[in-house]
Amino acid sequence: MSSCYGNILKLSIFGQSHSAAIGFSLDGLPAGFKIDMDELGSFMARRAPGKNKLSTARSEADALEFLSGLVADTTCGAPLAAIIRNTNVRSSDYSEIRDVPRPSHADFTSHVKYKGFQDVSGGGHFSGRLTAPLCGAGGICLQLLKTHGINVYAHIKSIHGIDDVNGEDNIEELKAVSSKTFPVIDDAAGEKMQQEILSAKENGDSVGGIIECIVTGMPVGVGEPMFDGLENRISSAVFGIPAVRGIEFGAGFEAASMFGSEHNDPYTVKDGNIVTTTNNHGGILGGISSGMSIVFRVAIKPTPSIFREQDSVSLSKMADEKLTINGRHDPCIVPRAVPCIEAAAALAITDSMLQCGMISL
Amino acid sequence: MSSCYGNILKLSIFGQSHSAAIGFSLDGLPAGFKIDMDELGSFMARRAPGKNKLSTARSEADALEFLSGLVADTTCGAPLAAIIRNTNVRSSDYSEIRDVPRPSHADFTSHVKYKGFQDVSGGGHFSGRLTAPLCGAGGICLQLLKTHGINVYAHIKSIHGIDDVNGEDNIEELKAVSSKTFPVIDDAAGEKMQQEILSAKENGDSVGGIIECIVTGMPVGVGEPMFDGLENRISSAVFGIPAVRGIEFGAGFEAASMFGSEHNDPYTVKDGNIVTTTNNHGGILGGISSGMSIVFRVAIKPTPSIFREQDSVSLSKMADEKLTINGRHDPCIVPRAVPCIEAAAALAITDSMLQCGMISL
Amino acid sequence: MSSCYGNILKLSIFGQSHSAAIGFSLDGLPAGFKIDMDELGSFMARRAPGKNKLSTARSEADALEFLSGLVADTTCGAPLAAIIRNTNVRSSDYSEIRDVPRPSHADFTSHVKYKGFQDVSGGGHFSGRLTAPLCGAGGICLQLLKTHGINVYAHIKSIHGIDDVNGEDNIEELKAVSSKTFPVIDDAAGEKMQQEILSAKENGDSVGGIIECIVTGMPVGVGEPMFDGLENRISSAVFGIPAVRGIEFGAGFEAASMFGSEHNDPYTVKDGNIVTTTNNHGGILGGISSGMSIVFRVAIKPTPSIFREQDSVSLSKMADEKLTINGRHDPCIVPRAVPCIEAAAALAITDSMLQCGMISL
Amino acid sequence: MSSCYGNILKLSIFGQSHSAAIGFSLDGLPAGFKIDMDELGSFMARRAPGKNKLSTARSEADALEFLSGLVADTTCGAPLAAIIRNTNVRSSDYSEIRDVPRPSHADFTSHVKYKGFQDVSGGGHFSGRLTAPLCGAGGICLQLLKTHGINVYAHIKSIHGIDDVNGEDNIEELKAVSSKTFPVIDDAAGEKMQQEILSAKENGDSVGGIIECIVTGMPVGVGEPMFDGLENRISSAVFGIPAVRGIEFGAGFEAASMFGSEHNDPYTVKDGNIVTTTNNHGGILGGISSGMSIVFRVAIKPTPSIFREQDSVSLSKMADEKLTINGRHDPCIVPRAVPCIEAAAALAITDSMLQCGMISL
Repeated sequence: MSSCYGNILKLSIFGQSHSAAIGFSLDGLPAGFKIDMDELGSFMARRAPGKNKLSTARSEADALEFLSGLVADTTCGAPLAAIIRNTNVRSSDYSEIRDVPRPSHADFTSHVKYKGFQDVSGGGHFSGRLTAPLCGAGGICLQLLKTHGINVYAHIKSIHGIDDVNGEDNIEELKAVSSKTFPVIDDAAGEKMQQEILSAKENGDSVGGIIECIVTGMPVGVGEPMFDGLENRISSAVFGIPAVRGIEFGAGFEAASMFGSEHNDPYTVKDGNIVTTTNNHGGILGGISSGMSIVFRVAIKPTPSIFREQDSVSLSKMADEKLTINGRHDPCIVPRAVPCIEAAAALAITDSMLQCGMISL
Repeated sequence: MSSCYGNILKLSIFGQSHSAAIGFSLDGLPAGFKIDMDELGSFMARRAPGKNKLSTARSEADALEFLSGLVADTTCGAPLAAIIRNTNVRSSDYSEIRDVPRPSHADFTSHVKYKGFQDVSGGGHFSGRLTAPLCGAGGICLQLLKTHGINVYAHIKSIHGIDDVNGEDNIEELKAVSSKTFPVIDDAAGEKMQQEILSAKENGDSVGGIIECIVTGMPVGVGEPMFDGLENRISSAVFGIPAVRGIEFGAGFEAASMFGSEHNDPYTVKDGNIVTTTNNHGGILGGISSGMSIVFRVAIKPTPSIFREQDSVSLSKMADEKLTINGRHDPCIVPRAVPCIEAAAALAITDSMLQCGMISL
Repeated sequence: MSSCYGNILKLSIFGQSHSAAIGFSLDGLPAGFKIDMDELGSFMARRAPGKNKLSTARSEADALEFLSGLVADTTCGAPLAAIIRNTNVRSSDYSEIRDVPRPSHADFTSHVKYKGFQDVSGGGHFSGRLTAPLCGAGGICLQLLKTHGINVYAHIKSIHGIDDVNGEDNIEELKAVSSKTFPVIDDAAGEKMQQEILSAKENGDSVGGIIECIVTGMPVGVGEPMFDGLENRISSAVFGIPAVRGIEFGAGFEAASMFGSEHNDPYTVKDGNIVTTTNNHGGILGGISSGMSIVFRVAIKPTPSIFREQDSVSLSKMADEKLTINGRHDPCIVPRAVPCIEAAAALAITDSMLQCGMISL
Repeated sequence: MSSCYGNILKLSIFGQSHSAAIGFSLDGLPAGFKIDMDELGSFMARRAPGKNKLSTARSEADALEFLSGLVADTTCGAPLAAIIRNTNVRSSDYSEIRDVPRPSHADFTSHVKYKGFQDVSGGGHFSGRLTAPLCGAGGICLQLLKTHGINVYAHIKSIHGIDDVNGEDNIEELKAVSSKTFPVIDDAAGEKMQQEILSAKENGDSVGGIIECIVTGMPVGVGEPMFDGLENRISSAVFGIPAVRGIEFGAGFEAASMFGSEHNDPYTVKDGNIVTTTNNHGGILGGISSGMSIVFRVAIKPTPSIFREQDSVSLSKMADEKLTINGRHDPCIVPRAVPCIEAAAALAITDSMLQCGMISL
């Protein structure tokens, strides 16, 4: 397996949904950085389920227990490790899965890869629960980036085709999203989205959506060309989040339908700085930050766990077999994934900045 | 810089557009594999410009000169290195760029990152020319994968909104694309696309498009969860190609508008194998191959080099300045990028298969 | 920091001497391997202090608490993580160190590197205590290698110039060493060594020694040339153990005084296998295993913590200052380091074997 | 294979003894550094054979041909690649080796690992010739370190038991060694060594020796704890040089016979800096540089290629067979390895300094 990420900043994530604990080890943070534990707790709470009727009923404490790497909440240079105990579980919901793989989950692929030895309980290491340590590590990076004037803001861009407004054109309102229960800019659109989710839930179905993320305050020159550019780094981290199916930067797939004369971003001098008058490039050129806001969007598939009867197979009989899933599942994971996207971006950017010596305390 | 890719299969790409040579070093191929040099030459020729009036007039030999790693065209276990001499250049077209960055190129970002020492000639290390060594290394991987029953087929999915038919539904025709001059399935659509490109060229403008890639014959179980899954690996390689702005797998961004009941792929037993009846997951679940075809799409932005006057700045004067680009530039790089996408996918899949011991000779 | 090791098998070690816990995350083990917990406990007990009057009085439970990666003691393919709670501490012994660095410890270098934010308590992340997680991870690898017919045996080769007999010539007796309290082959020599250690202890001084390690049952062909050969891999792991000052393979430094005609190992066919009649090469040629036993020796410096007054400086006053260390310290860490050397070798060899696909369950 | 080294500074070495060329790609150097090509040529000439009757008669130009990464001899930020054409070969000397492995060479191990497909000519990728690109890349790092006040000086410490004086006590004379034909401090000892080598040559035999390397001007704080310390990094690079059998730092193996009271290095304030009054730690504590000179020694085995008849086997017949080597071989490679050791140290230190942001132009 490779649940490890990073060149200078090395993140290792461990844990399965129903193992004793899940957690992370983060190596490479500079010494002397004081973590705001309250802020970290608030950040992680944006991810925690059980907050409202949209999410899974499985409530989790999600409190990080730090094991090492800090002295008086300040990084001491040694690897930072933290765990979250798994306390609220209901394993009997998953007994059928060992023999009958759930469609669009990792049951079948991991069964073959790990020759039947994989931990199936709760989805094992593939569970969305593993985004909790990702958010822990990423949340610390977010704080570190903030001291460098860099901020990461994500919001729901759409749920099942219902759109929020564009983030880059509504930056001030975007900044307020992190304190909302439902992370959208336009609350009216948010209401429609929540109706869509509940409607799907009542139908025993699920929906997906798109998350947009904007990073402001980037200096120029972060990222390496070719295989270690910011797009490569951010993608590598973001695809570590379950249910992600696509990523696009700046104008993204829309650029494929634009003329160069429309898509190119002209330069101009403004207040003594070189900026672009439009930002179709989404803040990254040649893999390197341009100083303009980094803009990217992530496609999240509808939750595979639905409550309708589905067609599957019995692995032991090698014959078709019906499957009905019980248990507690999110009809839509998009709202919960919003802080995860911020965390992933923060990890990628922090690692890139450490690589070119642009992190200082 | 990090022009290096891979865990077991380590690829290093070097060269600038106008340096003495460009090339690659590829370490980790198993010994005893015989390369079909004619096939490799044909593959790389799909990328070479100067073939038709659509592409840049700068013709290049693009013949790989192997320096090491082979004995009688057979891998000997030592690192494989090859170069391509840069012979056909016209440096005087780029003299203005040092002071006036071209919009949507890497001129400005690399200028800041490398403090003015970057090689600006022809775009330096950011030039599309560097996809030649990528195709050399990837072309070898394509042959190796073929001996394992795995094939990689890419085609133009759209140019400036003009669509080709879907690849997965037209697999046999898709296989024939690699021998065509213009890499589409539906030649009528291809004609319209080529008209669109020429029209843009006549207007001193450029267009972009989308490339779709399908990988058939994958075994189950390739890829590692979380940060080393096939999506992470393929993205890391694909974003190493200039002008790529987005990537999506399976249903991709469309999944964001689907219900779970629509998007989930049911399992069934067919001819003694477990397959899915639909393939919205695009052959990858939990980062691991399912045995179904891998399907992904890549967004390519319109070529930044256009011949209209553009707004830019003078770096020395720190003031606005107009810019008109001369020289020889592709009005659309999408056709040329098709083999590059296949090469990138082949590299990622070969590395992943080496990592789980599934490559054998 | 980089407390991470490995290419396929990725080990992350975290913890400081007085943090809440120390532990490791180990990613890359194949699924389906059942760990013998009793054997692992016995292995780690060989390292634990407080067993006899030779070692530090700080007794520790050292029981590994597994957090993830196992189902019924069997690897499930997900990262394996385990911690050891730090329970028995006495921090008041270290208060003086923040200002007055202990000679030949990492106090001064870490103080400068981490700008005073390092965790000084008990030596922080540099403490010998961190060899406990190393032994946990390495102990699991030892079991895995054993199923492949590979065994790792280390013993004390010398303490302060008092020699044990040679391991390769006394293989059967060497195998019995792991069950002894004092890990030597020749118990008479062992008695003299223990006297030497106690004598040093009574003098408030310390001694060092040499550990020899032999790995039997290696297949031919493990290891990669140049920078990933077995010597490079084993050295990288072994120098992660505190107090290591040198490493030599086969005839080692003695080879520098031999003629080629003496040092070369002739080949012969024996029982249908190709072996060498002598083993000056210590089982490794060109970085690759030859099938003969791997033989290497490690130099361990005398414990820096001695109870005599020493000359040091006050960092705050930037002036000379005397230092007397109190607390509980090993007069000789060599006996405790013996299992650590085995663990390090096992990690390096397991990773190398995974890299060339030679691990199978 | 893994002929790749480095975290930030990524070095890839390619080539076999008789392939078209050997060379390297070096990625990660900061832009704007001007290489002194004459100095680099002089440095590499210290390694080149054919200079005197001590070395192999196979003379090679060894001139580096740069392919990329430089503009006007100044690094431009893109990967630096260079090759050396192999022009002077005599392949008929190696025809017998395919079937009869040379004792203490990598013939047998590479034959098994690469299933007979390895390039045997001239020792293939295992040839000492591959130290030429190592010296090219390392030579550039030496120049970069020099601009930071860091210098790397190596000399022959002993040949077949005949000792040179200690380097650290004779620093000024040590600095003069690089301009000598025979790299020792004490020329009288050097004369005896050369006699010893010629005597061995006349006997159709070979000798080995020890190289000592001293790095002056190190700042405090370079290197990471545990697995990425300076000892780990330097060892990893040094064991990439053929014929290396051991490495020790500071007092090294001698520390194993010292008391702590003898081995510990007391601190004192001198001229406003914290230094140690002795340097048994060899400049590295806890993997981190202390500011004192780094001191290490490397054991080089006697050249395996000797001209006496040796016992070996026929791989095809699986039976014992005699072997007599012809050709042109060094009776002692130690003098040629001296600059290689400096190169390896420079690579390791440069990479470590880049990792903690201590390289600046």
